[in-house]
Formats: sequence, structure tokens, C-alpha cells
Amino acid sequence: MKIYHEDITVKTNKGIHLHDISDHVKVIIKASGIKNGFITVNSKHTTTAITINEFESRLTDDVRLFFHKLIPENDKYLHNDIHLRDCPQDEPENAHSHLASMLLGNTESIILQEGKMQLGKWQSIILIELDGSRDRTVGVQVMGV
Amino acid sequence: MKIYHEDITVKTNKGIHLHDISDHVKVIIKASGIKNGFITVNSKHTTTAITINEFESRLTDDVRLFFHKLIPENDKYLHNDIHLRDCPQDEPENAHSHLASMLLGNTESIILQEGKMQLGKWQSIILIELDGSRDRTVGVQVMGV
Amino acid sequence: MKIYHEDITVKTNKGIHLHDISDHVKVIIKASGIKNGFITVNSKHTTTAITINEFESRLTDDVRLFFHKLIPENDKYLHNDIHLRDCPQDEPENAHSHLASMLLGNTESIILQEGKMQLGKWQSIILIELDGSRDRTVGVQVMGV
Repeated sequence: MKIYHEDITVKTNKGIHLHDISDHVKVIIKASGIKNGFITVNSKHTTTAITINEFESRLTDDVRLFFHKLIPENDKYLHNDIHLRDCPQDEPENAHSHLASMLLGNTESIILQEGKMQLGKWQSIILIELDGSRDRTVGVQVMGV
Repeated sequence: MKIYHEDITVKTNKGIHLHDISDHVKVIIKASGIKNGFITVNSKHTTTAITINEFESRLTDDVRLFFHKLIPENDKYLHNDIHLRDCPQDEPENAHSHLASMLLGNTESIILQEGKMQLGKWQSIILIELDGSRDRTVGVQVMGV
Repeated sequence: MKIYHEDITVKTNKGIHLHDISDHVKVIIKASGIKNGFITVNSKHTTTAITINEFESRLTDDVRLFFHKLIPENDKYLHNDIHLRDCPQDEPENAHSHLASMLLGNTESIILQEGKMQLGKWQSIILIELDGSRDRTVGVQVMGV
């Protein structure tokens, strides 16, 4: 059994923004030489998410609009009382980003067969920036034979 | 180490509907001959979800009603402007289904010990159809010894 | 390849409450002797969740307040008509807890490298109690070399 790991770095856009990282993951699978097993994808941040869905430009805007409505940035959140927290006083007010991150999740596991991820025709692996712009890191591990 | 893979096919019901696929997964575990390791479950669609929860008939209706309220089908979504997209013009208007799919997630990993999934008494593996009815495919992989 | 498994038991607090279980998981990783591979975390309950996010005390209160608003406990849910269900008549009225559990998810997979989980600086593994207080069990498996 082999284990292969690489990090992907993504320079994200402002606010809520979706980034298709499928091609990055495919390059890592090829570099691993592993044909059968599975892939673990972990975003290393608390204000991002990893989702597997259709990467269609109008839908990515729907995601942005939906989360603005579901978890309004300007609502009152305790986490945003920076002056009451023991932290650098220039921390961003991003409680809404943390909540969206929890709802969407930051890890995915994907079946690998004969060198190909077993995803459906319309499925892409998407990094969702929820508090951009930033440099973000996504760990990708391939494990198998 | 062994790897065993099978697809489950489910003919789903109309609209939002929950399907218990636990027994399908158990048959695949038995066929694999693997006793210890883990199971990866991936739905191959962008308007479905996989969840692990209680399969109780009244709760499955609560799920349907909750998502109708949280992400109303008839709200305005950019993805539903089919005429502005470069796609077949008979595509379904299902942005609400994509958003629910992202919130719920499409992958699960489950610990396998002595031939049994380490799930709690009330936990079932559930395929949630969010834009039915359709023929849906769920990939199930068992990996271990 | 080695597989190591342990259950974590957590006595949770009342209502919605977050419990950082990162240190429990680290102890299990050390006990496993496994350096490279991955960790599977499964909560065995249908009214809990596992999330990976920042464990900051004011944010944990935001989570509680957010879910009270998103899925109000006192709304009408079919699952709460205990008298119409074939179950013990002292079952709790907790449909809101099940719905939150589905949105947040109950499983996580985490990359392990050189004996360390590949989590970001602010990421903790958090058990979210959604219908406490109870004794809760979380399965943790380490698999690798």
C-alpha cells in the first residue's frame, strides 16, 4: 500500500467565492502512481469549505447570494466582539464565515478506481472561500495500491 | 490489504425523498470479505445527498418540509435562467436542489470492525433525493483486511 | 498496514453545546503507533454532529444561537408527534436536533502525516451536542503505516 500527499495552494477571491480544484487533485493522483484506493481532501481553514457539486458560473453566484441571506454578515454575533476576546484586535469579524464553514464541511473522501476518481459527470471538487481574499491551503492525500 | 467496490442503483421518488440504503451497503461489505477497515460512500450526483441519521417515516417528511422552507423551489435563482446558460434548453430548474446537496454533503466514511459498520443503534445510511424522480448511483468501497 | 480503533465517551451538556475532542483524538493516534495514513471520526448518534472548526468560546455560543433561530425547537415537526409513532411514549421531541445533525454531518476524515493530523492552526475536532445532556460515543479509527 502506498500513501502520497501534497498540498494545493489557492489564492482566493474576495468574500464568498468558489474555486474548482478538480484539476489540481487529478495532477496529484497522477503524481502518486496509485490506481485504486481513495483520496482525502482537507481544507486547513475554519472559514472555507470543500464541497462536491456542479461548477456552473451562475450557480456559484446563487451560493454566494444564498449564504448572504441565510447567515447575514451584519447580524449580531458574539464572536465579532473582538474587544471582548483575547486575540489580536485586528482580527476580522467573520462569525458568519465560520457558521457557513460548519454547515458545508471541510473534508471529503473520494473513491479512486483504475486511476480515476469515481465522481459523476457534473461533480467537481470545489473550495469555497467564505471570508476572502486569502492564500488557502488544501491537503490532498492518495492512499491505495 | 483488499479493496472492493460496487455501485448501488436506486430508483428514487419525486421531489425530496429519503431512501435507506443501509442494507445495500451491508450486502457489499459481506461480498467484500473484508472484516476491518472502512467504507467510503459517494453519491455521484449534484442534486442528491448522503446522510447518516434516523430513518423514521415522520422525520423523513420533516426533512422534506424543512428544505422546502429553507430553500424555496420558487425563489429566484440565477442557475434557473436556463435561457442564459450554454446548456440543453430542457434542463430542470433545480438550483434549490444543488444548494441543499451542498449543505447536506454527498460523501461519508464509516469505520468497519469485525465485519460490522460501527454505527449507533438509530443510525441508517440514507440517500436523499433532492430533485427526483431519477435513477441514482451511489459508489460504495470497502478497504481493509 | 495497521488499523487501530478506540471509542471516546463524552458526557455532554444540556441543549446545544460544543465539546473539543482534539486532545482525545491525539491520544488515540499516539496509542496507535501509526505515523502516516488517515483518521476516521464517526459520532454514533443521530442528534449530534462532528465538525472541524475554531473552538472559541464566543463562537460556540453563536453556533447555539444560530441553530435556535434556523431550526426553532418549538416549530411544528411530525417526528415530535410521539403519540402517532410506534415508539416508547417518553421519547424526546427532538426533530430540530435531527435536522441540525444532518446539516452539520457526523463523520470526518483527516490526513495523518509523521504522527500529526494535517489540520490548520485554528482547526479543532468538535463534537456538537444538539439534544443534551447525554453520554455520547465517538468512534475514532487510525489506519496507515
